[in-house]
Amino acid sequence: MLVLNEQNIRQAIGMSEVIDAVDDAYRCYENNTYQMPTRAHVQHGENTYLMMPCFTDEYLSNKLVTVYPDNKDTPVIQGVVLLNDGRNGTPLAMMNGAYMTGIRTGAIGGSAIRHLSKQEASSAALIGTGVQGYFQLLAACAERTLTDIYLFNRSAEKVPAFIGRLQEALGKDIAIHHAKTTEEAIRQADIIITATSSNEPVLPDDASLLEGKLIVGIGSFQPSMQEFPKAAYDICPSIYIDSEDAIHESGDLITPLSAGWLSKDSIIPFSKIVTGELMHPENQDTILFKSTGMALFDAFVARNVYEAARERNIGDSVDL
Amino acid sequence: MLVLNEQNIRQAIGMSEVIDAVDDAYRCYENNTYQMPTRAHVQHGENTYLMMPCFTDEYLSNKLVTVYPDNKDTPVIQGVVLLNDGRNGTPLAMMNGAYMTGIRTGAIGGSAIRHLSKQEASSAALIGTGVQGYFQLLAACAERTLTDIYLFNRSAEKVPAFIGRLQEALGKDIAIHHAKTTEEAIRQADIIITATSSNEPVLPDDASLLEGKLIVGIGSFQPSMQEFPKAAYDICPSIYIDSEDAIHESGDLITPLSAGWLSKDSIIPFSKIVTGELMHPENQDTILFKSTGMALFDAFVARNVYEAARERNIGDSVDL
Repeated sequence: MLVLNEQNIRQAIGMSEVIDAVDDAYRCYENNTYQMPTRAHVQHGENTYLMMPCFTDEYLSNKLVTVYPDNKDTPVIQGVVLLNDGRNGTPLAMMNGAYMTGIRTGAIGGSAIRHLSKQEASSAALIGTGVQGYFQLLAACAERTLTDIYLFNRSAEKVPAFIGRLQEALGKDIAIHHAKTTEEAIRQADIIITATSSNEPVLPDDASLLEGKLIVGIGSFQPSMQEFPKAAYDICPSIYIDSEDAIHESGDLITPLSAGWLSKDSIIPFSKIVTGELMHPENQDTILFKSTGMALFDAFVARNVYEAARERNIGDSVDL
Repeated sequence: MLVLNEQNIRQAIGMSEVIDAVDDAYRCYENNTYQMPTRAHVQHGENTYLMMPCFTDEYLSNKLVTVYPDNKDTPVIQGVVLLNDGRNGTPLAMMNGAYMTGIRTGAIGGSAIRHLSKQEASSAALIGTGVQGYFQLLAACAERTLTDIYLFNRSAEKVPAFIGRLQEALGKDIAIHHAKTTEEAIRQADIIITATSSNEPVLPDDASLLEGKLIVGIGSFQPSMQEFPKAAYDICPSIYIDSEDAIHESGDLITPLSAGWLSKDSIIPFSKIVTGELMHPENQDTILFKSTGMALFDAFVARNVYEAARERNIGDSVDL
């Protein structure tokens, strides 16, 4: 059995290969050749244990994550991804779950950028400079040649360290700007990414600041959470989602649906864009994409990571 | 993170320490200081994936098992036990799931023998010489000084190899008899263990062959399965169970309850014997014990294995 830690995974696979895995997951989603139950969780006081199993034709994967909100010295979210051979059940690999979540969530945004963003997009704004935001920007840079990145975070004091980490990963060729307001962050950006845990819209309710942009929402994964303002729905005739679950899980769909800003038939599975079953209308240059994730993405990313690590002899082989 | 394979686990812990862990699990069950959801499973065609998580105060454990009934070259059941620190969620260990299941299931029978069997018990009969039966006998021998073991298996040709494995583990001081019938197997036995997947009672429906014996049922884990005959309920005023789930899962409770051989208030949680809340009545020398298992046992066995392995520097330490 292969054990792959963060460094192993980073060595084994580049962000564009992770995005390839996400695209394969979308194709599998359209073909319906998988078995993925509803996310199961166990609650123990304040703490949560999440289990996200998924069978594909070739593999069985399961992401097992603990969320301990009061953790101080250890990360709030920790876990593993287990990968089994889907044909006989044999355990094949265990991977660092936090890092796997980072790259797969980044790659979901990256896939949206790959398929929806203008080829000449050269700038991105990120609202929320947390772990997920970091991976969103790595994925954006894997898909488009960005010259400028604009960052906004509610706690401004956290931004300089984030810039340091980002510059280490992306090099010095990209200008990274610390915006004082969200307006300043998004004004000149071709791509807007929101990666917060906010319960209120984090983008200004001003159509003129959103028009012509690709807006990728990664935060809002609970009904109470919201990142997109009414103006976004006013100027976008439709919204792409990565998984049908989003309709029941995300406040960025639940709230506009119940408020009448969005109709149910304007919600489009993004898998149909990836497979080519649908084409994005050419005359629609403001685009909304909302992700809540699903275990099927983890399964395909785990497959690509495992196969790349095997091929390149990366990781720690243990006898179970 | 510590990886413990079969050999590591065997080195780290003896069967009586595994039985100690099972007893601790019973105490925790009575104190209700755990969080254990219903066993979750995912079905994919013929194949099944089982997830058995459990929070205790100190640890979070999860047994993840695949069941591939058509496997030929690989075992039908494979899996891992993951152990996390319950206080902050950090993953601590991954263990061989098949071996952990074997010793924990053996130890459930072993705990019944520890608390219920006569001190002078010197012989045991096993019906069903599969993997689980093997561990049942190891546990029985850890608790009582047995001189004779009687084996019966529907497929007689499998018994010699089983005797070989058993003798290797137990030494030559114990006489191991291959019985031609169940009657022959149980006639002289103080302890009777059934470990089959039978849908029909595997013990003779004859009270005179059962009287005065401790009968431990490990098989029947589905409503259609049954190992105990009507005569067993006729002579036993009550039956011990390891977990309340047994009432809904096992044909050895469902059938006698619906047939009126057993009343619901004659079903006694064995945890009450382990904690001393109840004493087994002295005038009742035929005893029925039925196990279906639960994740709480896995959690406590994983705890003891992990702590023993850490203390003795056993296992493969990997960086996750």
